[in-house]
Amino acid sequence: MSQRLIVTNVRRGTDAEPTSLTVADGLIAGYGEAPKGNDRVFDGSGCFVIPGLVEAHTHLDKSLLGMKWYVNEVGPRLIDRIDNERRQRRLLDLKPAEQAARQIEAVVAFGTTHLRSHVDIDTEVGIKGVEDVMEARERYRRYLEIDIVAFPQSGMLVRPGTVELMEQALTMGADVVGGLDPCMIERDPKGHLDTVFALAEKFGRPIDIHLHEAGEMGAFSTELILERTRALGMQGQVSISHAFCLGVQGVDYVPHLIDALAEERVHIVTTAPSSTSAPPVKRLVEAGIVVAGGSDGVRDVWGPYGNGDMLERAMFVGLRNNFRRDDDVALALDVCTYGGAKVRGQTGYGLETGCKADLVLIEGETLADAIVSRRRRRLVLKAGQIVGRDGEFVPH
Amino acid sequence: MSQRLIVTNVRRGTDAEPTSLTVADGLIAGYGEAPKGNDRVFDGSGCFVIPGLVEAHTHLDKSLLGMKWYVNEVGPRLIDRIDNERRQRRLLDLKPAEQAARQIEAVVAFGTTHLRSHVDIDTEVGIKGVEDVMEARERYRRYLEIDIVAFPQSGMLVRPGTVELMEQALTMGADVVGGLDPCMIERDPKGHLDTVFALAEKFGRPIDIHLHEAGEMGAFSTELILERTRALGMQGQVSISHAFCLGVQGVDYVPHLIDALAEERVHIVTTAPSSTSAPPVKRLVEAGIVVAGGSDGVRDVWGPYGNGDMLERAMFVGLRNNFRRDDDVALALDVCTYGGAKVRGQTGYGLETGCKADLVLIEGETLADAIVSRRRRRLVLKAGQIVGRDGEFVPH
Ligand SMILES: [Zn+2]
Ligand SMILES: [Zn+2]
Repeated sequence: MSQRLIVTNVRRGTDAEPTSLTVADGLIAGYGEAPKGNDRVFDGSGCFVIPGLVEAHTHLDKSLLGMKWYVNEVGPRLIDRIDNERRQRRLLDLKPAEQAARQIEAVVAFGTTHLRSHVDIDTEVGIKGVEDVMEARERYRRYLEIDIVAFPQSGMLVRPGTVELMEQALTMGADVVGGLDPCMIERDPKGHLDTVFALAEKFGRPIDIHLHEAGEMGAFSTELILERTRALGMQGQVSISHAFCLGVQGVDYVPHLIDALAEERVHIVTTAPSSTSAPPVKRLVEAGIVVAGGSDGVRDVWGPYGNGDMLERAMFVGLRNNFRRDDDVALALDVCTYGGAKVRGQTGYGLETGCKADLVLIEGETLADAIVSRRRRRLVLKAGQIVGRDGEFVPH
Repeated sequence: MSQRLIVTNVRRGTDAEPTSLTVADGLIAGYGEAPKGNDRVFDGSGCFVIPGLVEAHTHLDKSLLGMKWYVNEVGPRLIDRIDNERRQRRLLDLKPAEQAARQIEAVVAFGTTHLRSHVDIDTEVGIKGVEDVMEARERYRRYLEIDIVAFPQSGMLVRPGTVELMEQALTMGADVVGGLDPCMIERDPKGHLDTVFALAEKFGRPIDIHLHEAGEMGAFSTELILERTRALGMQGQVSISHAFCLGVQGVDYVPHLIDALAEERVHIVTTAPSSTSAPPVKRLVEAGIVVAGGSDGVRDVWGPYGNGDMLERAMFVGLRNNFRRDDDVALALDVCTYGGAKVRGQTGYGLETGCKADLVLIEGETLADAIVSRRRRRLVLKAGQIVGRDGEFVPH
């Protein structure tokens, strides 16, 4: 048995009384034990322990973190941004493996222990991005668990050859089949979704679809996704990212879609955007739908915002959903922890004895305080090892 | 002449080349001078200089900063929050002078040099809040310029005696006449606004009205405000805070209201909220309307969010308005600097030679980087004196 780590005087959940937390062999061995002779001790005074933050939607292959500032002069449409991105990838000489490494070290320091990254696949970049992010994933496997979504950012059927590249990526080790705006980008909702679900069936993989489509168009695409989920028995295996169409108020389709999403156990991943309609988190959770949180792009050619901090994202979820009560603020954090863990199908996640010791210590007077104040993380543990301390990445 | 301060190697606006900035006798004395024998020198390498941040809407009398965490279990309606606040003010034994001091020291460290605070007036608290904030204002006058809005948070006509208290506060030194939701809270839009404008006329003060009212109701109240502004010739003297009704999409009244607001030079103050409709900043600015930014309540019984950082507020303005381009991000900062200065009627504000040396140095590769990264402020000057350094308040 390796050396045990005892975190003393730490608070858990809404418990008022601090306790001690024992970590042994990469797992939570229990609570309330006093340190013994050979134990390593960390003083958790003033801190809460939470399970590792889960980033359920980002793009490790295209962050510009650490690069020269990119001056954004892009046009206003989604397609302007997609076209600009392919062009800038060449002009900026973006190195996905390097950029992934930068984002990974930054978010480990913030307490992210699990992450889902979409990675672009198209007929220009091919599967190079996936190879690069797989390389970064291997290099950082002791710090962060990553799953990779093969993501046809520029469409599949509109760019012949892309489906074959998707197959290559999935063969090589991409974990999830991605998709994108079946109407708005692909212009062929049936064709796009039939292809996505066929790939999922062929490779036995889950699905995660970017759906920016607004209003009734997005509702229509959601219905097509639901129909295929039901027909193929893929309940619990399908996620929709963004789903702005669920945030429209005063339309008839929302209650029906929420019922159907709950019925087919389709998950929703949100960034809690403030400039567009967004899924109503509490209503979805109350309907039994798993809701996870994501940063989406972190400082990329799409926009300059974001740092990958999922505690800040929990604040955005709270602000977006007008969560003011402490119990609602706690729900915003659940989205960025347990929600993401469920979307990724993680096992052994949480604060129970026997769970994996993927943990974060945050200073705060209460859990809500810890979330809204977003102080530097005191300690980050991955598989029981210290990987972050006082806001810094700790290599081991 | 007092000792000069030369800030070397600092960048200004979008200029690529660093320069030096000379501060003398509380003013910007010029750019490009080399330090001489007796000058105090500060190395501004890696920093941008911006004019002091302007907080155009907050509530210094009711922040809970530094107090024991308040567990929020309040009901969902606006009136629940207003009633709860009056109750909690007693239960928590809130001391407005002390809380104002805490918020002031925090925001000076963030680079706020000017601030407008609404202060509650009602038949329970009377004008005690105004007295307390005036006391804090006097104590911190070398650090921060504050104007006080006499704010009838619980209504005026619905609580007899409130108008007399408003008069007392304005006699005593409150600078601005406040108002609140003439329909939704006061239930008498004509009565409320006639009273607000009569007070403004009697005391010769500007007006700043909280308007949370949504959709057509808010549009109606805005029309009533515009009619009185025109009738009394108060162009440029009236501000509407929040104005959620301007953010509704696809309604007929918005273009008409925007034209009328521009015509009567009514200013708009926004927090850039993400959970409700919000004024479209760029559209308003393009119409010639002054738009300012505000934090509103900073960690109070209404909600746990906020720290008073107006650079973070600029980020919220950017996110809310989907500002991605660097020039748009710069506009978000303008709202939190020049916009607030205009709403407050400040003179001698800006970066020109001869302007008051109310300045902030922020690290960043570009101005947009400075805004989205929100690093600790390297230096804050108020009237040429150092009042903040490396994120800390500096007393003098
Ligand atoms: Zn995405
Ligand atoms: Zn307010």
